[in-house]
Amino acid sequence: MAKEREISDLSPWEDAQKMIAKAGREGVNLVWDRLKDQTPHCTFCEQGLTCSKCVMGPCRINPKGPKKMLGVCGADADLTVARNFGRFVAAGAAAHSDHGRDLLETLAAIGEGKTTDYGIRDEAKLERICKELGIDVEGLSVQERAKALANLFFEDYGCRSHNVAFSSRAPQKRKDLWERFGCTPRGIDRDCVEMLHRTHMGVDCDPVSICLHAGRVALGDGWGGSMIATEVSDIIFGTPKPVKSTVNLGVLREDQVNILVHGHSPIVSEMILAATREPAILAKAKEAGATGINIAGLCCTGNELLMRQGVPMAGNHLMTELAIVTGAVEMVIVDYQCIMPSLVNVAGCYHTKFVSTSDKAKFPGGIHMEFNYNNAREKAREAVLMAIEAYSLRDPDKVEIPSKPMSITSGFSNEAILGALGGTPEPLIQALQAGKVRGVVGIVGCNNPKLKHDHVHVNLAQELIKRDILVLATGCATVAMGKAGLLEPEASSRAGAGLAEICQALGIPPVLHVGSCVDNSRILHICAVLANYAGLDISDLPVAASAPEWYSEKAAAIGLYAVASGIYTHLGLPPHILGSSMITTLALKGLDDVFGACFAVEPGPLQAAELIDERIKAKRVALGWPA
Amino acid sequence: MAKEREISDLSPWEDAQKMIAKAGREGVNLVWDRLKDQTPHCTFCEQGLTCSKCVMGPCRINPKGPKKMLGVCGADADLTVARNFGRFVAAGAAAHSDHGRDLLETLAAIGEGKTTDYGIRDEAKLERICKELGIDVEGLSVQERAKALANLFFEDYGCRSHNVAFSSRAPQKRKDLWERFGCTPRGIDRDCVEMLHRTHMGVDCDPVSICLHAGRVALGDGWGGSMIATEVSDIIFGTPKPVKSTVNLGVLREDQVNILVHGHSPIVSEMILAATREPAILAKAKEAGATGINIAGLCCTGNELLMRQGVPMAGNHLMTELAIVTGAVEMVIVDYQCIMPSLVNVAGCYHTKFVSTSDKAKFPGGIHMEFNYNNAREKAREAVLMAIEAYSLRDPDKVEIPSKPMSITSGFSNEAILGALGGTPEPLIQALQAGKVRGVVGIVGCNNPKLKHDHVHVNLAQELIKRDILVLATGCATVAMGKAGLLEPEASSRAGAGLAEICQALGIPPVLHVGSCVDNSRILHICAVLANYAGLDISDLPVAASAPEWYSEKAAAIGLYAVASGIYTHLGLPPHILGSSMITTLALKGLDDVFGACFAVEPGPLQAAELIDERIKAKRVALGWPA
Repeated sequence: MAKEREISDLSPWEDAQKMIAKAGREGVNLVWDRLKDQTPHCTFCEQGLTCSKCVMGPCRINPKGPKKMLGVCGADADLTVARNFGRFVAAGAAAHSDHGRDLLETLAAIGEGKTTDYGIRDEAKLERICKELGIDVEGLSVQERAKALANLFFEDYGCRSHNVAFSSRAPQKRKDLWERFGCTPRGIDRDCVEMLHRTHMGVDCDPVSICLHAGRVALGDGWGGSMIATEVSDIIFGTPKPVKSTVNLGVLREDQVNILVHGHSPIVSEMILAATREPAILAKAKEAGATGINIAGLCCTGNELLMRQGVPMAGNHLMTELAIVTGAVEMVIVDYQCIMPSLVNVAGCYHTKFVSTSDKAKFPGGIHMEFNYNNAREKAREAVLMAIEAYSLRDPDKVEIPSKPMSITSGFSNEAILGALGGTPEPLIQALQAGKVRGVVGIVGCNNPKLKHDHVHVNLAQELIKRDILVLATGCATVAMGKAGLLEPEASSRAGAGLAEICQALGIPPVLHVGSCVDNSRILHICAVLANYAGLDISDLPVAASAPEWYSEKAAAIGLYAVASGIYTHLGLPPHILGSSMITTLALKGLDDVFGACFAVEPGPLQAAELIDERIKAKRVALGWPA
Repeated sequence: MAKEREISDLSPWEDAQKMIAKAGREGVNLVWDRLKDQTPHCTFCEQGLTCSKCVMGPCRINPKGPKKMLGVCGADADLTVARNFGRFVAAGAAAHSDHGRDLLETLAAIGEGKTTDYGIRDEAKLERICKELGIDVEGLSVQERAKALANLFFEDYGCRSHNVAFSSRAPQKRKDLWERFGCTPRGIDRDCVEMLHRTHMGVDCDPVSICLHAGRVALGDGWGGSMIATEVSDIIFGTPKPVKSTVNLGVLREDQVNILVHGHSPIVSEMILAATREPAILAKAKEAGATGINIAGLCCTGNELLMRQGVPMAGNHLMTELAIVTGAVEMVIVDYQCIMPSLVNVAGCYHTKFVSTSDKAKFPGGIHMEFNYNNAREKAREAVLMAIEAYSLRDPDKVEIPSKPMSITSGFSNEAILGALGGTPEPLIQALQAGKVRGVVGIVGCNNPKLKHDHVHVNLAQELIKRDILVLATGCATVAMGKAGLLEPEASSRAGAGLAEICQALGIPPVLHVGSCVDNSRILHICAVLANYAGLDISDLPVAASAPEWYSEKAAAIGLYAVASGIYTHLGLPPHILGSSMITTLALKGLDDVFGACFAVEPGPLQAAELIDERIKAKRVALGWPA
């Protein structure tokens, strides 16, 4: 970086700025410190031009030559970039899908009567999904339905499936197109594994072929692993409906035992929440001098609890270290994904207990308490009691809880949205057609310390709603929107006249929180509902997606499944592909000819809004709707 | 590299040396040229200290500090190395297992009557394996048995399996140990996908936990994907029995149409072979002025044809480019794995057609003919006719076929070995106990241009047989052994007195060719047979493995499944792990406490022989056998 970044360059939020300053005073190493230390990055790696996939290398490719134009095996820049990008996407798809598998195993355990800790909270949705997927529910008990549905979804992970079950939701034109390009999502695991195979030395040497398979892998995430994760989570833990809550570090309570749940799955965090509501445990907290137990969310397990239970949200990716720096957190309890390894060290600077719960995500220096569907309720009690014990160790001199919480509305599942519309997409189609709502954009994904925290999220959203474009937010973007006040119905005053009118009529905010990052599948689903209803392909709709501050492999998988589903997708930062002009051109242009959608990369929020708006205009004009 | 390498430093073989010189004269770029261009390698990548797994980075870790000790996420050197190594192993396991899946799909197609191109050549083995795995074959037709077995193996790839079917072959002690350390191979695909998930940012942050899961993934390869590939290949294409053949570039024929099959699976190469034997096609070759059609193998699909059909072997990994440089090759027809992308360019320097056959392995600039179980026979005819056409384009001035072929004996499946022993491992156990055969070592794996071609393979094998240690060879090591004359019974004169006696009694060579690289599963299996027979664990046996010149991710998976199965394993080169002293110590020492076996890294063949011999001695002493 050319110049030293001031704290105000790192984050616009008071809570973040105060905690960055506090961390500085207390000698706590933060993500921005490490980024500075790692800058400048290796330009070969940054461009996707490094390969360590065999020990004839490692190789660094210089496409401009004259030296190092080829790896030892003979791979050129295009192939090297494609191989790296293929694995990058596969890892993201694998993460979501393995998360989905855990929900599925819980559903199977319920169905097989192997757990009493978990049950079915939304029996109607269970029945609906069973019927949608062709399971004859007649005469089946709830438990038997759970078992039958689990069995069906397990097939999607196996290698005998020819297309994942939920791909039936996609418009026929889209499915035909996938078939034509060999992108029909098949077995979720199989396609990931095939990507590993293809990118082994001397297998797929065609960069385009690898990229198309990356599309297939990503679609297996979006319409497979992620969609299973979302729908099964709803069945087990309840389908979200609009709910009020609060956001930012101000949600921490000086007078209560603060427990932060962090990670992605609701399986553990729902149990923690349940434990804190048990009278005996609450009594223990009071014995310890606290007025209660305060659960707050970080990252996507936070989104899961927020959507379904209205649990407040402490922060997103770049706030995870800072939340601990408040000195007011007794425990961070995590499942998996996006949990910076640094958190154990940050927790070690305070009285905070760091507890891991999954056998596939252990943290040296943390406390490991393995949760499963047989012991979850008991383990959750144990963990909460441990947090209560830690309360007495809190050092009041180190406690600083910044900012007042912001109010937000969450819980906009597709069921809730369609419910608000009277059970049919017709009013939304009409509003779109009339241009009151000119388009719909999903703003999703992470934070990245290279970009000013939440800056692109918020400014892009503000600009879009001003242009009468409805925004759906998931993942870390949610917290940004919430802190900016965009998740409240009152924010419709900041929207264009058409969107404001619709929002006011329905009593909804112009930015709707639709869930966690696996819940981007809800966006796919509602796009399919709209397209099917209007007799269109998804790529015909005036919709787009944006991951303005993404950082993770999962986000790359999400971006690619969006594009492969026909949704134009903006990224605030490029993936590691710029070393290949072929792959870069394919991403920014060529994919349009394949999927009717492509990527755009633009760090500036207003410029990004302009790009998205242009695309929406073009789609509207093509449909004969007012631009 | 400090000094310029002479041709004689690159390979000891006449055929290789002549072709390297010819390539130099003809301006053909070879793997050694590219290695030179890529040397020195990036030391971060070489040590496994680079991470490009998210766009907060890429990061380079310097464990010595003071700068760059942590990645942006907070990962240290140990975690970074473990994550990279985990994915490296998973990719190798994925490659073998996806190859196994293709065989399985062929078996299913046979079982379901969907193919007439393929059938069951070894009905007895089909029945035997069905019975071994608990399938009631009574009253089932061959086709029904094939279907039942395919269904059973498909479960191993799914996510409902708790242990892959063939893990039943392992000694009980070994299975208990796997269970204790969470390493029981579960679903083959699932475990690979879980590795991708674990190594995503913020999932498994415990280097040891990642390494143990790598063990599980590798075991899913060895006892799962690879073993399925081997056994199903035998069922479909016949179980190998001793067969005579020849090896080196001298197997090419100046007067015949030369077709090289390259890759790993027998599915395509068996069909090519069959097509060349059809009288109508042979007649075409004669019309074109050739005396016949000569199929020769490269790499592991070559090993598959050699083991079962006695097809001559043109060369191993480092010979693949050089075979084309002879100017005498009409066609290289490939499936997948280890096919250097450079081959298309090398083929382009001659009249050689380069044909790819798998939808998952395309080669820009090559000819793509997609084979499947419905069209394979027809496509194979087409391909062979295309090769015949190319014969007339051969430029006699460019043709140089070096060396006289060496005689070899191949075909030592476990069935053949046990058959030679009278159907029981007893004689081998007795010979081991008496010290006539002091141990058994599998020498496996690739070539690596960093090491003098085949030098470690041959010298290690020679040194081991001298010490009365029986050698089993697979993969690229086979060609090295064959060229050195070690695959003939006469080579027993170069063995120690005890081993020579046994070899002469049985009429076998002191180095037995047991197959391709998926066929390392045969070595696992025979180790299990010996251990079970003697009431021991595999780690108690005086056995070892060596991949002296390995290069690929598959070899890393093989090495790790060998170690996790209790087999001490020597590597000629280290994987990219040296950046972590924790992981390095784990590999070279710590794994001994987990699996009763560990890795050794040593490029020198005599030193490696010494290390292996010491280990064998220790095992023998522990068993109370003469050292």
